[in-house]
Amino acid sequence: MRHRYIIKKKQDSICDLIKGAHDAWSGWVCVLFVGLVTGVVAGVIDIGASWMSDLKYGICPEAFWLNREQCCWSSNETTFDNGNCSQWWTWPEVFSQSREGVGPYIISYLFYIVWALMFAALSAALVRMFAPYACGSGIPEIKTILSGFIIRGYLGKWTLIIKSVGIMLAVSAGLSLGKEGPMVHIACCIGNILSYLFPKYGRNEAKKREILSAAAAAGVSVAFGAPIGGVLFSLEEVSYYFPLKTLWRSFFCALVAAFILRSINPFGNEHSVLFYVEYNKPWIFFELVPFVALGIIGGMVATLFIKANLYWCRYRKVSKLGQYPVTEVLVVAVVTAVIAYPNPYTRMNTSQLIFLLFSQCGVSNSDNLCDYNRNFTDVNSAIEIAAAGPGVYKAVWLLVLALVFKLVATIFTFGFKAPCGLFIPSLCLGAIMGRIVGIGMEQLAYNYPHIWLFSGECSTGDDCITPGLYAMVGAAAVLGGVTRMTVSLVVIMFELTGGVRYIVPLMAAAMASKWVGDALGRQGIYDAHIELNGYPFLDSKEEFAHTSLAADVMQPKHNEPLSVLTQDSMTVDDVETLLKETEHNGFPVVVSRESQYLVGFVLRRDLNLAIANAKRTLEGICGQSLVLFVNSAPPQATGPPPLKLKKILDMAPITMTDQTPMETVVDMFRKLGLRQTLVTHNGRLLGVITKKDVLRHVKQMDNEDPNSVLFN
Amino acid sequence: MRHRYIIKKKQDSICDLIKGAHDAWSGWVCVLFVGLVTGVVAGVIDIGASWMSDLKYGICPEAFWLNREQCCWSSNETTFDNGNCSQWWTWPEVFSQSREGVGPYIISYLFYIVWALMFAALSAALVRMFAPYACGSGIPEIKTILSGFIIRGYLGKWTLIIKSVGIMLAVSAGLSLGKEGPMVHIACCIGNILSYLFPKYGRNEAKKREILSAAAAAGVSVAFGAPIGGVLFSLEEVSYYFPLKTLWRSFFCALVAAFILRSINPFGNEHSVLFYVEYNKPWIFFELVPFVALGIIGGMVATLFIKANLYWCRYRKVSKLGQYPVTEVLVVAVVTAVIAYPNPYTRMNTSQLIFLLFSQCGVSNSDNLCDYNRNFTDVNSAIEIAAAGPGVYKAVWLLVLALVFKLVATIFTFGFKAPCGLFIPSLCLGAIMGRIVGIGMEQLAYNYPHIWLFSGECSTGDDCITPGLYAMVGAAAVLGGVTRMTVSLVVIMFELTGGVRYIVPLMAAAMASKWVGDALGRQGIYDAHIELNGYPFLDSKEEFAHTSLAADVMQPKHNEPLSVLTQDSMTVDDVETLLKETEHNGFPVVVSRESQYLVGFVLRRDLNLAIANAKRTLEGICGQSLVLFVNSAPPQATGPPPLKLKKILDMAPITMTDQTPMETVVDMFRKLGLRQTLVTHNGRLLGVITKKDVLRHVKQMDNEDPNSVLFN
Repeated sequence: MRHRYIIKKKQDSICDLIKGAHDAWSGWVCVLFVGLVTGVVAGVIDIGASWMSDLKYGICPEAFWLNREQCCWSSNETTFDNGNCSQWWTWPEVFSQSREGVGPYIISYLFYIVWALMFAALSAALVRMFAPYACGSGIPEIKTILSGFIIRGYLGKWTLIIKSVGIMLAVSAGLSLGKEGPMVHIACCIGNILSYLFPKYGRNEAKKREILSAAAAAGVSVAFGAPIGGVLFSLEEVSYYFPLKTLWRSFFCALVAAFILRSINPFGNEHSVLFYVEYNKPWIFFELVPFVALGIIGGMVATLFIKANLYWCRYRKVSKLGQYPVTEVLVVAVVTAVIAYPNPYTRMNTSQLIFLLFSQCGVSNSDNLCDYNRNFTDVNSAIEIAAAGPGVYKAVWLLVLALVFKLVATIFTFGFKAPCGLFIPSLCLGAIMGRIVGIGMEQLAYNYPHIWLFSGECSTGDDCITPGLYAMVGAAAVLGGVTRMTVSLVVIMFELTGGVRYIVPLMAAAMASKWVGDALGRQGIYDAHIELNGYPFLDSKEEFAHTSLAADVMQPKHNEPLSVLTQDSMTVDDVETLLKETEHNGFPVVVSRESQYLVGFVLRRDLNLAIANAKRTLEGICGQSLVLFVNSAPPQATGPPPLKLKKILDMAPITMTDQTPMETVVDMFRKLGLRQTLVTHNGRLLGVITKKDVLRHVKQMDNEDPNSVLFN
Repeated sequence: MRHRYIIKKKQDSICDLIKGAHDAWSGWVCVLFVGLVTGVVAGVIDIGASWMSDLKYGICPEAFWLNREQCCWSSNETTFDNGNCSQWWTWPEVFSQSREGVGPYIISYLFYIVWALMFAALSAALVRMFAPYACGSGIPEIKTILSGFIIRGYLGKWTLIIKSVGIMLAVSAGLSLGKEGPMVHIACCIGNILSYLFPKYGRNEAKKREILSAAAAAGVSVAFGAPIGGVLFSLEEVSYYFPLKTLWRSFFCALVAAFILRSINPFGNEHSVLFYVEYNKPWIFFELVPFVALGIIGGMVATLFIKANLYWCRYRKVSKLGQYPVTEVLVVAVVTAVIAYPNPYTRMNTSQLIFLLFSQCGVSNSDNLCDYNRNFTDVNSAIEIAAAGPGVYKAVWLLVLALVFKLVATIFTFGFKAPCGLFIPSLCLGAIMGRIVGIGMEQLAYNYPHIWLFSGECSTGDDCITPGLYAMVGAAAVLGGVTRMTVSLVVIMFELTGGVRYIVPLMAAAMASKWVGDALGRQGIYDAHIELNGYPFLDSKEEFAHTSLAADVMQPKHNEPLSVLTQDSMTVDDVETLLKETEHNGFPVVVSRESQYLVGFVLRRDLNLAIANAKRTLEGICGQSLVLFVNSAPPQATGPPPLKLKKILDMAPITMTDQTPMETVVDMFRKLGLRQTLVTHNGRLLGVITKKDVLRHVKQMDNEDPNSVLFN
């Protein structure tokens, strides 16, 4: 704390002299740049992923760099058959000039698998060769970094480049993953790199974390087109300590990024939201029952997913499988592609599938899901409720298969050694589940319109149940169960879909899902992965509910000696011996061995540097020189000149008494971001509590293995 | 901290025994009740205010308890003339059976003034007689309470009842005030009262503040129908320390309240938002320039308002005016009514005016503001851009007059001794300003459609500029300048209006306004009123940027003695003398006078209680008894039996060294919610820093009078 303060003061004063105005504005300028670059990178990734995804199906021979949609724009045809136009050649057309039949189907199938394999292989190989940190979603690691832990290179430029390219390839490969989590990681890399342009932020870890929080908000903002949801996500889920003064700056960053992405317009629609839907009918009060039920099922599915995924990740860690990361990715990619292609709902992009499931049936929707026995007379007239045709039943069966496949595929996908996010697969699982329940409810209302439950709304003959809304609610439920997000989830969903009126259903489902999830398994997927990887993360949401005291946790225990320095009686040799014999990061300084009253705290790094420096530059410093942490030497000093180290002494270490309850200690570690604290009794130094000790103690109290926490 | 901890532990253990499940759920149940009651109270206030407001104009003879709208519903007429129907009798009709002419106008005018006077008088008198705390908006006080200060009775049941009735009357009186700020106060009263039903929250101030934060969110939620905005408002503006685990609970509370209010449906429209607007056209990129300009003007208007209002409030405090609060309210009410009636825009409800200004011109809008030279052919066809007719010019002049009047009236209104909120008047000022600028831009685009700026969008002849959007942006700018809200403002505005697409314009204006406001005057209206009233509020957003040390701030200064207790050498008489001679809230306990090593800290209250208790119940305790804060008496003790007080000793006080920079000290006071900290040097006690000392030091460093901070 003190150390940071000094650094900051020093640098502030320099900056003030050089460019006071730049300093005051640098925070804003920095987040502006972060927002701009994040928006551009997200746009490039979206365009690239969309082009490569379409490459699996065919090519635009006139201009190979266009994706299917752009290719068809360039033609003047007004009617599209299932999104295809004559300008766009599918692979069978390229070779045999025909679209229908068994042969072309096999050719398409093969091309699909080969491209998927190529993209996945490239993605995994790039990660393996250039940036091992670029794998996974990155959110657990960013949570850990924002809590004060430093992972060197995790937010570096190579990670940025490889993760951007890798996620593009992985999405294009048709794997069951999303690019939303990795977008947060990419945005944080951008934030980290750009913060070095501004000395105020680049040189100070605490300040840099403010930029990283804003960058995380920008990442979610571009991933979903949801700036407010992004800020809340950063606040609720990612950031450890979120100072309110950075709220506004984070919002600015998120908004700039979203605005840039909207200007690039990679999706080519006029709405700035990803899955824009509009429903004709409001929801009925009675529908809260199925919504809560969806929440409960969603929570159970999510828990099943978390447990299975953790089991698999643990198996990967201990077995030989972990040694063949690229092979694993390839196998998953091939199996996914082989199984996914025959089912139209798994063959299409996951985002497209979600959009399809969210949307309501109308005149223009020709999918099997909308095969109802009704006549459309006009776009504006009310849609009547109707019996489901055979297409709907077929679609429901295919969706059930898709649900099982997606669930299994995501279990094996999340955590392998390529960039992969979890949002889109979770949303997709929930949307499938919700749509099926919604169709069921709709048919129930059609067949029994006079049950009192429906009688108020459904007796008029209009369609009173919107299956798309159920899909939306189900998606929120599963995502909520997997990540344990709450407010940010509801806000993201409603920014994502533009459905302002549906906050109550979304909230009811998210709440039910979270409670079910918490009851069945304590942790969300991110916390579970933090624990799996043993990152030293002190959860700021859980209350410490035990009655132990600081004296029980501190090092050393009562019968061991404490490694301390004295303020004026140790020689350079004594200090160097102590440095060699122990591995502590810092040492308390006391008055003397006999009266251990605390004077201050000195860091190992500073001590090493200062001694080496003194030996090199100061005359007469040798092993017998006294090391002084006070201004005046004791009068009896003879022999070689003393080494004065008062300037590296932190005179204001945080101390507590040995009777302090651990609840307070944990609270102080969290809120003040401490790394260690000194324990005293009646002013005398008794011991030290480090963050490691606290983490181990928390684990121990929760009956878990305290040695599972790793430190580097 | 320790004290709280003990209380909480004790009570937890009792509760765990009696009803463990109730304890775990009590937080949720409590916020559920708070949400329910807040929703109902808000509904009652809305209905009552609406009825009484209409009473100023006339009455429903068949059923006097109906307001104009409801009265007209009960009739079967389909066409309304300006909202009037034959069922509803205006006052001239009641007496002279005619509506038009000079005589009826005067009768209407007189009735308007008389009713306004009556309502205002009743409101002020109720406040004066029953609940002096019910005046004003309440937000500055709630900010102070949430920062840890206790104002007895401020959140009591009388305040709740009187404020609810008072705000109804004050709004009905047509004064230039809103019910939004008071709704926050009312919700906090409800939260405070209901928290006593749950021992876990009622008995623990820190826990109760969690409920109050949630209640504040519910207050904004019902005031605007904006649950997300409410949570963000509570987070950003009201709450001092907002633990993330309460975010979800606050959101739940806000949502329940909004849902209940929507079910009561006091506005009688199907949208849950107050000023639901839909615009046909998106905004053009170029329009950012006028939006930012609106933000700058809004910031200037807001600063002018804050400075003038503060000047007037200070004058009220020092002059005789403060002695006649009811008279002041009456004078303001009469003057407001007399000036407001002739101008139709100030005569109508402020909310109705805002809605009118926000809405776009269409087929059904017959106000002067929409008197354009164009032909409407169809509801669905695009609105063409057109020259403004004479009605528009007249309306603009009336709006300019309304702007000046509203600004002056609000300056004199905010801070007088009746309940009054600031949101609606601020929004109204901004909306008038914005609409005028918007009409100007529109006519510019009509007259010069081929300037390159407009050419892209306006050359087709459609209406490309929406003056209503300018009103919305202007409203956000002024409100942002007055309150210095940022993210919560944007979210409230967009929930209020349902305008998801207009985040960027709103944000640009709010940002410009905040920066201009910060540059012209340091504080928002709430912080300014906190300072004006001298509440001890340690702002958590401002950084402490000075280099003073704990040693400079602590009491006593170097040459005075420190009032301490020793652990085993003082008699009861000594302690009682110390208690009489000093006024400190607590005393540090040290080893002995000679070696002042810190043992613990004891509160005056506990010490008084313990001594009185001991004298009453324990045999042989007299003035010569030793007071012991250790377990074992010193061996040489003879005479009367010692008084053992170890159990009231806080063994874990927070300590700092004298070299700790004040930045760290302020940070710890804020984050840990301290009331005092002990200052040591090499383990020896040097002095004490209380929150008062910190607040005075902050004031001193900002070159303000340190004695302006009040304490009770």
